[in-house]
Amino acid sequence: MSCVFCAIVAGDAPAIKIFEDDDYLALLDIRPFTRGHTLVIPKQHTVDLTDTPPETVAAMAAIGQRIARAARESGLHADGNNVVINDGKAAFQSVFHIHLHVLPRQSGDKLSFAKGMLLRRDPDREESGRLLREALAKLDAASEG
Amino acid sequence: MSCVFCAIVAGDAPAIKIFEDDDYLALLDIRPFTRGHTLVIPKQHTVDLTDTPPETVAAMAAIGQRIARAARESGLHADGNNVVINDGKAAFQSVFHIHLHVLPRQSGDKLSFAKGMLLRRDPDREESGRLLREALAKLDAASEG
Ligand SMILES: [Zn+2]
Ligand SMILES: [Zn+2]
Repeated sequence: MSCVFCAIVAGDAPAIKIFEDDDYLALLDIRPFTRGHTLVIPKQHTVDLTDTPPETVAAMAAIGQRIARAARESGLHADGNNVVINDGKAAFQSVFHIHLHVLPRQSGDKLSFAKGMLLRRDPDREESGRLLREALAKLDAASEG
Repeated sequence: MSCVFCAIVAGDAPAIKIFEDDDYLALLDIRPFTRGHTLVIPKQHTVDLTDTPPETVAAMAAIGQRIARAARESGLHADGNNVVINDGKAAFQSVFHIHLHVLPRQSGDKLSFAKGMLLRRDPDREESGRLLREALAKLDAASEG
């Protein structure tokens, strides 16, 4: 299997999962720009915006929004988020299974953000994952309550 | 009226429009990073991902996808696109009416892209708008045909 995201979906490669349902999976980026940098992927393999159904792109965006909200509420204390789809190699897409990035941001983090783009590591990925899952569960409980 | 996007929706401020329906508007960014840099906005004012309904975020993403596909097919000859929502001041949001960026990209444009981030001007905005509208119309005709 040559697609790393399909391997993760199949359970053949490890990932720190933030969210999962029948059709979508959200996992931490292994080379994060910021703490909590999350990727939302459809389980069904498509490449980019040219071959992905509009309903899938819409659902990815809505899941990304929930994770962005969770990042603000979470122990990561995000003050905002960049939500990004890089569509094609010309736009810096590096894994050719479509994915949406959620990049939690802090006020005044420009310098550490630039540094993060070079270092691309999180000293405690497990903790970042735990904090996001905890905040998502709280958001879900609030929207159901 | 203090919101520039609400002023454009109301017809009180000019814009080069790429797409419009009852609930959404897509217009060229007045300070583009690349040729054809388009913003997708809901006509109903909301601020960011914390107060925008998920259905709205989903619809914005699907419209952004159509524009991204049009940019590839268009006379702008995009090879890819960055599709971005900057959620909050900490994430470089500068107009506080939610919007989704579509940035058409060219293979090997890294240098001109960096230059574009500084210059932020298009020598022929009207032509960029015309090319995108023309490609969208062709995509619509193809999906209806
Ligand atoms: Zn895949
Ligand atoms: Zn507004």
